Amino acid sequence: MCTALTLKTSEGNHLFGRNMDIEFSFNQSVGIIPRSFEYKNMSTNELEKTKYAIIGMITVIDNHPMLADGLNEKGLACAGLNFPGYAHWESELSEEKINVPAYDFMLWVLSNFETLEELKPELEKLNLLDSRINNLTPPPTLHWIITDKTGQSIVIEKTKSGLRLFNNEVGVLTNSPTFDWHLTNLRQYIGLSSNQVTNAKWSTQELKALGQGVGCVGIPGDFTPASRFVRTAFLRHFALANDKDSMNISEFFHILNNVAMVRGSVRTPDNRSDITQYTSCMNQEKGIYYYNTYNNNNINSIDMHKEDLNAKEIKLFNYEDTLKINNQN
Amino acid sequence: MCTALTLKTSEGNHLFGRNMDIEFSFNQSVGIIPRSFEYKNMSTNELEKTKYAIIGMITVIDNHPMLADGLNEKGLACAGLNFPGYAHWESELSEEKINVPAYDFMLWVLSNFETLEELKPELEKLNLLDSRINNLTPPPTLHWIITDKTGQSIVIEKTKSGLRLFNNEVGVLTNSPTFDWHLTNLRQYIGLSSNQVTNAKWSTQELKALGQGVGCVGIPGDFTPASRFVRTAFLRHFALANDKDSMNISEFFHILNNVAMVRGSVRTPDNRSDITQYTSCMNQEKGIYYYNTYNNNNINSIDMHKEDLNAKEIKLFNYEDTLKINNQN
Amino acid sequence: MCTALTLKTSEGNHLFGRNMDIEFSFNQSVGIIPRSFEYKNMSTNELEKTKYAIIGMITVIDNHPMLADGLNEKGLACAGLNFPGYAHWESELSEEKINVPAYDFMLWVLSNFETLEELKPELEKLNLLDSRINNLTPPPTLHWIITDKTGQSIVIEKTKSGLRLFNNEVGVLTNSPTFDWHLTNLRQYIGLSSNQVTNAKWSTQELKALGQGVGCVGIPGDFTPASRFVRTAFLRHFALANDKDSMNISEFFHILNNVAMVRGSVRTPDNRSDITQYTSCMNQEKGIYYYNTYNNNNINSIDMHKEDLNAKEIKLFNYEDTLKINNQN
Amino acid sequence: MCTALTLKTSEGNHLFGRNMDIEFSFNQSVGIIPRSFEYKNMSTNELEKTKYAIIGMITVIDNHPMLADGLNEKGLACAGLNFPGYAHWESELSEEKINVPAYDFMLWVLSNFETLEELKPELEKLNLLDSRINNLTPPPTLHWIITDKTGQSIVIEKTKSGLRLFNNEVGVLTNSPTFDWHLTNLRQYIGLSSNQVTNAKWSTQELKALGQGVGCVGIPGDFTPASRFVRTAFLRHFALANDKDSMNISEFFHILNNVAMVRGSVRTPDNRSDITQYTSCMNQEKGIYYYNTYNNNNINSIDMHKEDLNAKEIKLFNYEDTLKINNQN
Repeated sequence: MCTALTLKTSEGNHLFGRNMDIEFSFNQSVGIIPRSFEYKNMSTNELEKTKYAIIGMITVIDNHPMLADGLNEKGLACAGLNFPGYAHWESELSEEKINVPAYDFMLWVLSNFETLEELKPELEKLNLLDSRINNLTPPPTLHWIITDKTGQSIVIEKTKSGLRLFNNEVGVLTNSPTFDWHLTNLRQYIGLSSNQVTNAKWSTQELKALGQGVGCVGIPGDFTPASRFVRTAFLRHFALANDKDSMNISEFFHILNNVAMVRGSVRTPDNRSDITQYTSCMNQEKGIYYYNTYNNNNINSIDMHKEDLNAKEIKLFNYEDTLKINNQN
Repeated sequence: MCTALTLKTSEGNHLFGRNMDIEFSFNQSVGIIPRSFEYKNMSTNELEKTKYAIIGMITVIDNHPMLADGLNEKGLACAGLNFPGYAHWESELSEEKINVPAYDFMLWVLSNFETLEELKPELEKLNLLDSRINNLTPPPTLHWIITDKTGQSIVIEKTKSGLRLFNNEVGVLTNSPTFDWHLTNLRQYIGLSSNQVTNAKWSTQELKALGQGVGCVGIPGDFTPASRFVRTAFLRHFALANDKDSMNISEFFHILNNVAMVRGSVRTPDNRSDITQYTSCMNQEKGIYYYNTYNNNNINSIDMHKEDLNAKEIKLFNYEDTLKINNQN
Repeated sequence: MCTALTLKTSEGNHLFGRNMDIEFSFNQSVGIIPRSFEYKNMSTNELEKTKYAIIGMITVIDNHPMLADGLNEKGLACAGLNFPGYAHWESELSEEKINVPAYDFMLWVLSNFETLEELKPELEKLNLLDSRINNLTPPPTLHWIITDKTGQSIVIEKTKSGLRLFNNEVGVLTNSPTFDWHLTNLRQYIGLSSNQVTNAKWSTQELKALGQGVGCVGIPGDFTPASRFVRTAFLRHFALANDKDSMNISEFFHILNNVAMVRGSVRTPDNRSDITQYTSCMNQEKGIYYYNTYNNNNINSIDMHKEDLNAKEIKLFNYEDTLKINNQN
Repeated sequence: MCTALTLKTSEGNHLFGRNMDIEFSFNQSVGIIPRSFEYKNMSTNELEKTKYAIIGMITVIDNHPMLADGLNEKGLACAGLNFPGYAHWESELSEEKINVPAYDFMLWVLSNFETLEELKPELEKLNLLDSRINNLTPPPTLHWIITDKTGQSIVIEKTKSGLRLFNNEVGVLTNSPTFDWHLTNLRQYIGLSSNQVTNAKWSTQELKALGQGVGCVGIPGDFTPASRFVRTAFLRHFALANDKDSMNISEFFHILNNVAMVRGSVRTPDNRSDITQYTSCMNQEKGIYYYNTYNNNNINSIDMHKEDLNAKEIKLFNYEDTLKINNQN
């Protein structure tokens, strides 16, 4: 499962990224998809061409970039998060609509649009299909969070009832169920606060706090999507509310660390450990992709503007998964 | 507030360390206290001399090393964690007992003993005093966790009822209340598990899990000492139970990240943000001190055996608190 | 707020009823509305006539029976539960549809239909209106649970998106949000169980249960609609699963007692105490209405078949709200 | 397991009673033990004689009254609650102390003392023994709550570390662990309140309460002793704080209903249903014993002052366990 986050820094930049929680590696690495990169739309069998260059976490399958999350040169960013039991794709091509395989949705968004404003009206015209990139790769079960340099974000969910677009005012996304369910769920927790409650008197008994954090007692600590949504929304809100002047990349990683999956504590039905394979954080203004991995918490960065965005091929960067320690002596 | 942890690596080394959660910096940095270092016992006004060299997180006040946590050259390690409302020190010197200021307890332990076995019988002879290092520095309110190369750990608490020693079989310590209260509290949570519950039928309604992590629903997510204790004990146990062969420094930091305080979400009564200033992790066999900080998640390391342990002075290392990023292009 | 419940007894009868949670009395009492009782439909200004006799908790306003919950002579039963922020009524009459004021929905259902099968297709034809019985009485904000002698139940919700009918397989209803949200919320709790967990070993620490009930740790104890829904669904399921042969009126009241509001513990925004004014329980086969009140826990009963169901007028019974104690000496 | 409660009524009377939670009937019924009733102390083999008459829930074994809870003619009242894993009795008679079998503790208290003030100094002289009333009946594992007409209450616990007396300022007792652990545990919940939180804004998202009760979110809903203690202490405090003028027998039963065990939901290790067999409530000023049972929620009452307290024999009253309904027609 996964958790995505947006955060405005004290300097006015916009950060966007996610925890990728999954029990196996999918051969991912940061890559840059250049402008005018051609790829085949497996639903229509037609060739498509990217307009904007993209940096993101990519798995290349049959020379096709499968994005987990990414950012384009205009500052539009997107992440796909698992949405099992809800995601539903069409199997029939539509003559009136834009036919896009569900696995290519992020590529379509990031390669064609500059802003949410530009994107939103096009989303209604979309026909998302269950086509496969190849026989070995089943269609994904995703919903998406998309954000641009305004800091606004939206969530796109395609279920059996059709495609829905939500304005996302909490800047968070996790997994199933649907986004509106999670928003309603937050309403259970509005009594929680970052403020300390130092003491109370119940009947005639004086009761003092045992330590900081009493105002937040009741927040769930498990790793289900609903609980991660509540915790992330809580942490983001109170970070911005209390310490707006200290928002930076470190804060971004701290928030996502709280909902990261620790090896051993979350087991899949087939008894493997679901872990946070990597955490990404993109600076939308600067075009920089930051990430660290389960085995290497040191943050790596790749600046798309240091590369040739008109290159012919996808450029992949080494996935730095070996612990990098700063030896002070 | 704070959280301490012990963890045995897959290679058989023993890791020990802690989150330091506090709303301000106390001018800390890693330092090495050499063998035969002399300092004044402010309770007795006598000079003391270290037997073993120590590496730890230190604040030097009046040329005196105040330890937050540390490790000696024999692999004995100790951390002090806040214990407000419970810690109690004597104000009278004892003629029969060993008089040690409470603030020097860790220094006394690490500079004199090699193992828990050697230390334990001496603890009974201890008279812990409320002496101050100087007028500006009040006595601390601490309890301690101590561990050696056997991987065993103990907790020392001195309250108004006297000094108590607990064997610590869960390898975790947080803050108030007393250790035995926390152990009893764990018994509330024995129904929780890392295993997934995939579905159930309540009345005639089929209910499927929305995502991984259902077996752990009910674990508290807040930052009070009790909740951090439960989460850390849960994560440590299931890490070792399910993935014993993947235990290493990364795992150690992942566990402590889960209970780390995120800026903004935990406010002190005077409305400041309690944050995890640093996380430390000591390899007890190798004599290496690892740490990262709130502003710099990159792990730093200092190997005590690369230094002259017979030096005359305390050696301090730079506190690396500026974000260090690995630029891949 | 309120909680409704269905339960099949060991003898094969079907019980249906509810907690009425509200901070004031609304002059309610059990009443019987006879067959062929005439009343004005305030939306159409036409006279309507009941087909079936009804027993229920009633407030008579302007000679009009306002039902809180009730049962008809055919065993069809219905309760209205507060649904603030979601309930939405039309303001325009429809020419094609059956125009019914929202406040008369229960009267319309119970006076016209025998079974859910008969009722369901008619619900689509319904136009629920915001008409008022008089100027002093605003339209209600309700959703409804309806059940018949098959033991099946349905939930009817009319929001801005239209009228929805849900099959209710958990036999429970509380308040906002919508029924499908609550069903999804149950999926968070499928790891909970009535079974005892007696011991566990976390790391090397043996941990024994402190008392019964460990398998249910994590269930929320507050009085919000979501928490009452979870608790009631849990209690109903495990009662039927473990003790199907002991299901009777007592069990029905025990389940609802668990989610009943205790004076003082739930305060409204204007600082009054929300309490469970009464609990009702109808035997659908026998036509008996049982209830007790906040001030009188003794269960009262009224058997509709002991009355003349062809009477001209509504017959009201005394609301027994004074504590009735059985003096044994 | 069990829950005990004290409550001062609006009229100034003191109520005391408990839920008896157990998976089987123990042949209990209300009985009156007269003044000067003789019984054998099985530890000393001497005859004892009651000074004050007692009314309580009794099982008579070999003509010996085993009390579950009771009240004497002076208004002193006591209840024994299960305390497994902690209760410890002596096996050796003491020459200096008063030797009392643990199972006779309540009988000794109620038959000899008028007030807590009178009782407290005698408790130190007590040697509680593991003697048995007969071979078939093992010693109980209990701790006790005792209260008098001042409304004050105390808790008595005898563990391996000796006998401890706690002043009970919250007016509640449940089961294991020790009373001081529960008091400390309450300090986790001091952020909870009966007051409604109507809305909040997290980030830019407005969040409205879904229903009443938001200030109490985080309170545990399960049936473990710790959770029942928290809920009962919460309900008692806020009842008295918000509605002191409505405190009466009904309120007493409402509070205990919230923590009563519902059949099916709490299973013992040998898979039987732990249920609240009865709830008792004694008016300490009036000498009246009220109770209802799992199968009969109608409250029964027995007034000790209507009986001959100088009778020779224990008088037992019928245990009214058959549902008593008030038929209104």
